[in-house]
Amino acid sequence: MKGNVIVGQSGGPTAAINSSLAGVYRTAKDRGAKKVYGMLHGVQGLLQERYIDLSEHIKTELDAELLKRTPAAFLGSCRYKLPEIHEDKAVYEKIFKILDKLDIEAFIYIGGNDSMDTIKKLSDYAIITGHPTRFVGCPKTIDNDLALTDHTPGYGSAAKYIGTSLKEIIRDGFCLEYPKGLVTIVEIMGRNAGWLTGAAALSQGEDCDGPDLIYLPEITFDLHQFSDKVKQLLEKKPSVVVAVSEGIRTGDGNYVCELGSSVDFVDAFGHKQLSGTASYLASFIAGEIGCKTRAIELSTLQRSASHAASRVDILEAYQVGGAAVKAADEGDSGKMVVLQRLSDDPYQCGTEVKDVHKIANDEKLVPREWVNEEGTYVTDEFVAYVRPLIQGDVSPVMVDGIPRHLFRSYDM
Amino acid sequence: MKGNVIVGQSGGPTAAINSSLAGVYRTAKDRGAKKVYGMLHGVQGLLQERYIDLSEHIKTELDAELLKRTPAAFLGSCRYKLPEIHEDKAVYEKIFKILDKLDIEAFIYIGGNDSMDTIKKLSDYAIITGHPTRFVGCPKTIDNDLALTDHTPGYGSAAKYIGTSLKEIIRDGFCLEYPKGLVTIVEIMGRNAGWLTGAAALSQGEDCDGPDLIYLPEITFDLHQFSDKVKQLLEKKPSVVVAVSEGIRTGDGNYVCELGSSVDFVDAFGHKQLSGTASYLASFIAGEIGCKTRAIELSTLQRSASHAASRVDILEAYQVGGAAVKAADEGDSGKMVVLQRLSDDPYQCGTEVKDVHKIANDEKLVPREWVNEEGTYVTDEFVAYVRPLIQGDVSPVMVDGIPRHLFRSYDM
Repeated sequence: MKGNVIVGQSGGPTAAINSSLAGVYRTAKDRGAKKVYGMLHGVQGLLQERYIDLSEHIKTELDAELLKRTPAAFLGSCRYKLPEIHEDKAVYEKIFKILDKLDIEAFIYIGGNDSMDTIKKLSDYAIITGHPTRFVGCPKTIDNDLALTDHTPGYGSAAKYIGTSLKEIIRDGFCLEYPKGLVTIVEIMGRNAGWLTGAAALSQGEDCDGPDLIYLPEITFDLHQFSDKVKQLLEKKPSVVVAVSEGIRTGDGNYVCELGSSVDFVDAFGHKQLSGTASYLASFIAGEIGCKTRAIELSTLQRSASHAASRVDILEAYQVGGAAVKAADEGDSGKMVVLQRLSDDPYQCGTEVKDVHKIANDEKLVPREWVNEEGTYVTDEFVAYVRPLIQGDVSPVMVDGIPRHLFRSYDM
Repeated sequence: MKGNVIVGQSGGPTAAINSSLAGVYRTAKDRGAKKVYGMLHGVQGLLQERYIDLSEHIKTELDAELLKRTPAAFLGSCRYKLPEIHEDKAVYEKIFKILDKLDIEAFIYIGGNDSMDTIKKLSDYAIITGHPTRFVGCPKTIDNDLALTDHTPGYGSAAKYIGTSLKEIIRDGFCLEYPKGLVTIVEIMGRNAGWLTGAAALSQGEDCDGPDLIYLPEITFDLHQFSDKVKQLLEKKPSVVVAVSEGIRTGDGNYVCELGSSVDFVDAFGHKQLSGTASYLASFIAGEIGCKTRAIELSTLQRSASHAASRVDILEAYQVGGAAVKAADEGDSGKMVVLQRLSDDPYQCGTEVKDVHKIANDEKLVPREWVNEEGTYVTDEFVAYVRPLIQGDVSPVMVDGIPRHLFRSYDM
């Protein structure tokens, strides 16, 4: 590389997003980039000319290792959606002026489907104007809902945390006995895609039954069928654990969380902010059955639990970061790095690049055939798909009993 | 030992309670006990003659290691309170008849203050009736609220999990920017004692500010002072994280969670079941300040997260289990094993036995001088007390990417 590289992080935090950042930095440096800039809070921050020189933060190999183990976006993130080019050219002119000032040869954006929309628009604008900067996306989302890639970095670690936590919650549920039993509803992230919720099944094994029911947002949710199922289960066992997606909807299209009182907030991409699905269902079951109920939201813990990250995930996140820089250096633009699974056993996975136009704003849902007929559990095929992605651990760097992260000042 | 030993688990689950069970089993066997029985669901189960022979479950050294790493009560637990002896002698006669049938020389009960009430009453009854069985308590509670012991097994692992999770939540909070900032309220267990909530301060270090405010149940909570504090913090930083105990109360003695709509359930020991403190405060702050808020309940995850257990805690839990059997074998009864800290640096801790009459039904609270004057944070002394208890890790036995536990059928 002859010029400089700029990298940004966008969308929701994950436990692996900073491993991709470390991969981008290392490969850019190895390929001769003079400077590797990090935009603070993605494109939104870039528009305000907020960026840092990553060399000032990643000074040693230990810093790079700490960065791989640091959760959430080290550079800060955003949910900013670029306007269409014909709607507001000025925004694009501003961004490209900043890129020129910084002599940016490659622009790498680590994010999910909304972030790939940014890569698409910026690379389109570069083509239209004949600008030489190359734009490559690096997949990242715990939701695992990106098209054309076998899976997304960030998903494996979240899935491992969910499987591990569910197993602990299930054990906890059998401790105390209640006259009419205990029903625990665990709410898991995933607005439209059930990849995370399905990962609850990873807790199942020789030493654990796994959750009793799993409800994905892809399948219409029926409150009364649900209540009947729980009743039947309580006749057989004293503690029932149900994994539900935050995004489950009833037949008329309403989110379950909206059935009770709930917050109704819409973000910049038009997504409703959901909360309270588990609380609603726990109250509903308590009313219907009269048993003890408990609602548990895994909340932001599931996306930022780097202390329990998957080694496969952290390594792949690092690889796709490097692959994105390599692709840009070799002339690709308007592309996203994808993971291609070569085999399940032994698990082998490589990277390729695909046209970002085929990825942006699309959502990959759990295939119907990976959910049982009743819509109450994922199949063995689902588990076989996820299992390789949660293998191995990344031992945290423990300092005084707590994992150490790479320092970042919040007001930098 | 010439006869048999019976051991029970009582009260809330912890990540370390089964390590004490492993310690009881190993020491009883080493000291010549013929059988080591486990009562299922504590004294409540014993009254129904529900017990197992532990040798059928702990067959190998690997089983014992798995048991140490298995969260929640392997034997099942209860919150059963024995009647006073003069109120209902029949209950005691029934228990002692079962003990005689099983030729029980030592009765070990692993639990918190309510469980020590059981040891007290049973040992009193044995003295009154001249019965030879000896009754010894083994401390266990994430709440760390037992009198006369430096700390309780279970607390260190919960504290480590809380410190680790808070650090991840704090990082997550700085990712995305919100026009008026983000306030995250993290609700932590502890009805009357703030030991767990104070452990949130463990997240503070060179790489993390720690939570901005910590509210313990020992200190009266003032909603408007709280709101003012948060406003001031939001002027300085974009993301504010507050750790609150589930049990914080306002000046008139009402639980904060009762200020909104909340469940009002009283258990057998007269404890109110609380929920919703964080939710209430998040709504309150959103209303007062208009910023984005988030409520996170660490819920049962904090007590059963054996995947992130403290090595010091797991080893001490094992030791107190062994020490309880040793004490009973050497003639003690009506006693509880306590942990005695010999030094902080290097941390050294031994065991002793103390009269259970001085422990049962008492609660050790966080000393006022370990909270700052304003009542909004714990002091360095608090952190220095907890820090040694979270040291070291217990590597989980990972099978296919998920920690393995010792198998236990829920219907045994």
